[in-house]
Amino acid sequence: MTSTTCEFPDLARLVRPRNVVVVLGSQRPNSEGARLLENLSAHSRLEGELFVVNPPMRGDGPFRCWPSIAALPDADIDVALIILRAAHVMDALRDCAARGIPFAVVMSSGFAEAGPEGQALQQEIADLCRQTGLRVYGPNCPGLSNFRDRMGMTISPAFKSDRNVGTIGIVTQGGGAGRNVVQGLSYGAGAAMWLSAGNEVDLGAPDFIAHMANDPGVRVIAVLLEGIKDGRRLVAALELARSRGKPVVILKIGRSEYGMRAAQSHTGSITGAADVNSAMFAQFGAIEAHDMDELVALARLADGGRLPASADLAVVTFSGGAAAMAADQIGLQGLRLAQFSPATTEHLRTSLPDYAAISNPVDVTAEALKSIDGLASCLRAVADDPAVGAVVVPIPADYAELTDGIARAIVDAAADAAKPILPVWMSRRLGTGFERLESQGLAPFLSLTTALAALRKVMPRGLLSGPDAAPGGPACAEPAAAQAVACTESAAKAMLREAGIPVPQGRLSRSAAEAAEAAQAIGFPVVLKIASAQIPHKTEVGGVRLGVGSAGDAAEAYEALVRQVGARRPDATIDGVLVEKMFHDGGREMLVTVRADPMYGHVVTVGLGGIFVELLKDVAHRVLPIQAADVRDMLAGLKHRAYLGAFRNLPPIDAEAFVQLVLRISEFVSGRPELREAEFNPVWVGPPGEGAWVLDALILTSPDVERR
Amino acid sequence: MTSTTCEFPDLARLVRPRNVVVVLGSQRPNSEGARLLENLSAHSRLEGELFVVNPPMRGDGPFRCWPSIAALPDADIDVALIILRAAHVMDALRDCAARGIPFAVVMSSGFAEAGPEGQALQQEIADLCRQTGLRVYGPNCPGLSNFRDRMGMTISPAFKSDRNVGTIGIVTQGGGAGRNVVQGLSYGAGAAMWLSAGNEVDLGAPDFIAHMANDPGVRVIAVLLEGIKDGRRLVAALELARSRGKPVVILKIGRSEYGMRAAQSHTGSITGAADVNSAMFAQFGAIEAHDMDELVALARLADGGRLPASADLAVVTFSGGAAAMAADQIGLQGLRLAQFSPATTEHLRTSLPDYAAISNPVDVTAEALKSIDGLASCLRAVADDPAVGAVVVPIPADYAELTDGIARAIVDAAADAAKPILPVWMSRRLGTGFERLESQGLAPFLSLTTALAALRKVMPRGLLSGPDAAPGGPACAEPAAAQAVACTESAAKAMLREAGIPVPQGRLSRSAAEAAEAAQAIGFPVVLKIASAQIPHKTEVGGVRLGVGSAGDAAEAYEALVRQVGARRPDATIDGVLVEKMFHDGGREMLVTVRADPMYGHVVTVGLGGIFVELLKDVAHRVLPIQAADVRDMLAGLKHRAYLGAFRNLPPIDAEAFVQLVLRISEFVSGRPELREAEFNPVWVGPPGEGAWVLDALILTSPDVERR
Repeated sequence: MTSTTCEFPDLARLVRPRNVVVVLGSQRPNSEGARLLENLSAHSRLEGELFVVNPPMRGDGPFRCWPSIAALPDADIDVALIILRAAHVMDALRDCAARGIPFAVVMSSGFAEAGPEGQALQQEIADLCRQTGLRVYGPNCPGLSNFRDRMGMTISPAFKSDRNVGTIGIVTQGGGAGRNVVQGLSYGAGAAMWLSAGNEVDLGAPDFIAHMANDPGVRVIAVLLEGIKDGRRLVAALELARSRGKPVVILKIGRSEYGMRAAQSHTGSITGAADVNSAMFAQFGAIEAHDMDELVALARLADGGRLPASADLAVVTFSGGAAAMAADQIGLQGLRLAQFSPATTEHLRTSLPDYAAISNPVDVTAEALKSIDGLASCLRAVADDPAVGAVVVPIPADYAELTDGIARAIVDAAADAAKPILPVWMSRRLGTGFERLESQGLAPFLSLTTALAALRKVMPRGLLSGPDAAPGGPACAEPAAAQAVACTESAAKAMLREAGIPVPQGRLSRSAAEAAEAAQAIGFPVVLKIASAQIPHKTEVGGVRLGVGSAGDAAEAYEALVRQVGARRPDATIDGVLVEKMFHDGGREMLVTVRADPMYGHVVTVGLGGIFVELLKDVAHRVLPIQAADVRDMLAGLKHRAYLGAFRNLPPIDAEAFVQLVLRISEFVSGRPELREAEFNPVWVGPPGEGAWVLDALILTSPDVERR
Repeated sequence: MTSTTCEFPDLARLVRPRNVVVVLGSQRPNSEGARLLENLSAHSRLEGELFVVNPPMRGDGPFRCWPSIAALPDADIDVALIILRAAHVMDALRDCAARGIPFAVVMSSGFAEAGPEGQALQQEIADLCRQTGLRVYGPNCPGLSNFRDRMGMTISPAFKSDRNVGTIGIVTQGGGAGRNVVQGLSYGAGAAMWLSAGNEVDLGAPDFIAHMANDPGVRVIAVLLEGIKDGRRLVAALELARSRGKPVVILKIGRSEYGMRAAQSHTGSITGAADVNSAMFAQFGAIEAHDMDELVALARLADGGRLPASADLAVVTFSGGAAAMAADQIGLQGLRLAQFSPATTEHLRTSLPDYAAISNPVDVTAEALKSIDGLASCLRAVADDPAVGAVVVPIPADYAELTDGIARAIVDAAADAAKPILPVWMSRRLGTGFERLESQGLAPFLSLTTALAALRKVMPRGLLSGPDAAPGGPACAEPAAAQAVACTESAAKAMLREAGIPVPQGRLSRSAAEAAEAAQAIGFPVVLKIASAQIPHKTEVGGVRLGVGSAGDAAEAYEALVRQVGARRPDATIDGVLVEKMFHDGGREMLVTVRADPMYGHVVTVGLGGIFVELLKDVAHRVLPIQAADVRDMLAGLKHRAYLGAFRNLPPIDAEAFVQLVLRISEFVSGRPELREAEFNPVWVGPPGEGAWVLDALILTSPDVERR
């Protein structure tokens, strides 16, 4: 999609060198130099020679040393690995460049992360690279671990035990976080290599992503970024990975101000605007993770065999509660519960106790845990169902051998199932079942939330629907139960006026002449609204005229309203047109409803009104009775409360008037058992001193008054 | 706050009975009856007598049996524990009532969860309770575990090992989920009791919450609800707990349609509207959890000693990356990084290597891990700082003995620190350090996200600010960099017109007469806008008049605009007033900006315009170049995309016209290197066929053209 073109260097000789030189100041036991030499000599499969240069020529270790790179015997050296004090690094790099060594890895710290002096040193390296073509990896980094080819060009003492080789490529800047990912891939899906270039003076994350995109041994690229040195190169690298069909999973620190500052001070690079970064990742097909555990989980899911085939999931568990929780999370994530085929249902019916729940989510019951084979065959049957994209297996508690049994069944079924089977170990007690799943590479998720959020993220976007929210509160629900009766707006407003609730001055007119007269009496501008008990939502049928400025216009508007609404709703009896004072547009529109909730009795809802009702559904609820402090809390809890403060050109709203209005409305409704629901929308709230007014009211009464 | 008053039963004799009768059908080994008898006889401290009634009088177990409750010897029995087939339960219950036994626990299943026949049986129990005053717990439940008084009135084989007694009360409906919570409290904070009444035919969650609210041995109440039988009783119980100062942590299943259905079919009770439930929990001070692991974590945090004293957190870690990630999450959760006192800073300076980061977030460096005492003293110093509410210690990877060392330091410091010290074990490899923290009751969180989300939830609400979002994208950023120059709107529109981008017909007028003439020529209604290069945001200074309907009004509006804006902005040079065709309000207002991003080059932003810009910040970004499909994707990615479809009374927007407009604007800006930023807001998008028009344009040019 973009025309960005970048050249990426060929890193083959860096990642898998033949001849290597280590340049160090000391090889005494436990020094970083000694650890590097041990990794290279004892734990790597270096095909060529390992040279050691020790400029001070300290005889403190087992390896034969040369005094300088220039003094080395004739050999085609691919990489120089440098651990010297920062001040001595430039000399070594110049020697590398002079000898034509193509790559140098600088592990030493003391550069851009360490103040102005270090920054100057780092700039010298950058200049040298530009001038000579030498490519530098680092400084301030743990080195480079190529697990697949067993090349440990790293000071990490853990390299020797990093034996679970796989096809996930890891790109990081800092060391600790990369180690986290490597540890997360200890079983099952493993890492192919881990490139972590610290300050990225020259080579950096985009180069590594591009290298991995081109490396057939890497199937998934997991990236952790603190800073971004060059956004366009990153874009180009992501594009390249996409063109090669390699999923990239990326965690970018700096989504908050604190995070940006901390990342900058750690790596000295800028982080970029978080929302632009996220948009860019999405644009170029990278999957964004929001925490380390999610980064690891997403990489594992994307690494072959664990990607769901569709958004239709099956849940198999042995607890009704866990089944319900999993179903809940599936809905919240916009995923779906698969509809089983008759064959699957039949298989489950014949295999499980008759009190088991055999439709999705499946509750096999604790009884079924006694047969591992039976359980495995159920899992396989569900996974083989063509309607199922993946099987989620929540394990709510550790039941020792019983849950070890379900773990066996999962391992068994996962080995030859057509779809991914994803266990979720929900208990804090990590029993033998957990260990079995973990060591067999099934990497159980540790909570339903993380499991289903991760599944959602790896789902092809077209397959997802929006979150399947539970039926909302009063503001969003369809109002009228069968037997409820709506009052007309005029009748409702008359009731309100009588109860001391502010409604605008108005008059119901039954002819164009009456409308003109009413408008004249009220004063301009006025608003005209169709009056019909059958039309509770007037705007939807074009039944409102705002800002009518003269008696003539009012007469005309009357005729037009009656004609047009009559044509659209021939079923409705039109009682006339309500002419009302119009409030200026320096106010804001709110919503207040009170409804008899089947669960809690009267519930009051307050929120943004007018067009915001459908658009934002930004409301707060309280069970009655309430006090003024509750209403203030509700306002403070609104997501878009900024709308109520000083906003654009407007002063803040008359909040106290609104609070009092809500209290009066609450009393009004709760004192009248015949009222089933009252919806006031919009309520106009003016600037301080101008009050809060109910501009439209819908009151539903119930013939069969029922109080609990 | 509410006037709800409920009577709650005194459950003392149920929870801690003296004399108990077990009514069972069999006590053969491994039967539920045998497990219950074993729990009561071998693993409980029953002060009174244990009787066994076995109506069929099968001699299959070690306990002496009576044939019926009526036949029992004279004794004041507190509780009858019933495990019979469903069909026989009613007889036993009638016997209980007849003998005056106050409580019966029915563990058998086969009631409301099992179809119409079971529902009828359950109704019989309900009727009996109402008629006789017998209180029934169950049916379809695992019984009742009182850990504190060691009373295992449960069939759970795990009871014997539930030895970590504490002060958290657990209320559930289903069994598996309750076991999850008990296992989550295996170390450190423990459970006092677990009440789980399955189908809740009579006694239910509100009764248990109320009991625990009144029980001085319970400090925190952890509740998992699938259904809600009686919302008002639940409200009353939560009110009671609040009045007693006991935190209630609650997880309610049924936030999505799937979850509601699954929970209903599991427990046969209704779930209530999710948003109303959540509002009710907040209103009555309960902390809502969204997953099992969070429920456990919140209960532990609330259970004394681990509640943060303020929202100002300290981070202490040994990795710069982990420090940055923790800072990031703190900002995202609306929490704050504490500012250390000079004494704390001095302590850290003298204790840590000089390349450590000693301001918050603290990176002690891997070097510091070598001294457990030093580390513990740093943790203590930070925790003792008056500015710090809690200390978060992220551990990004397992480093065997090194991370066991930090675990020792945490255990050491936490024992006498003034504030909670909360470890976060981020690695999948759960090493000895993890085990140490876990077994010492420090319950490390397993990810930063869960840790900080939980901390946020237990924070007193007044202490929180909104999320500290990173500087947003173009739409929200302050536009003008120092040297950027804004064109006037007329100049900008002339450029656009020339580039073939639709702008409304308009004329710059320099007098009232010219304005009237322009309005006449354009046709009514028109809009008048102040023209001044110094006033890019006209609305904010009252510089716009909409819906001007006649030449006279146009002249008047001209005068008023020049006078009023001149008074508000005496610094600005006013070039005149732009008179433009006004579009009807059947369109929608969008925003399009293109900006030279320092990271990615040109970035285009599309979103909801007009007043929505500040209110919703609902925008999507893409790196240029883009194609039509990208723009469609951006629209599909907007959160409030409903606004663009058929909405209230309006048809959907002319989306294709808007897509083409965005492409033209993108080309227009990216082809002109002198343009630094172009903001078009609002862009009016009409119904299909009426096109998309740039109503206002702000173009910033840069004197020093710079292209990367």
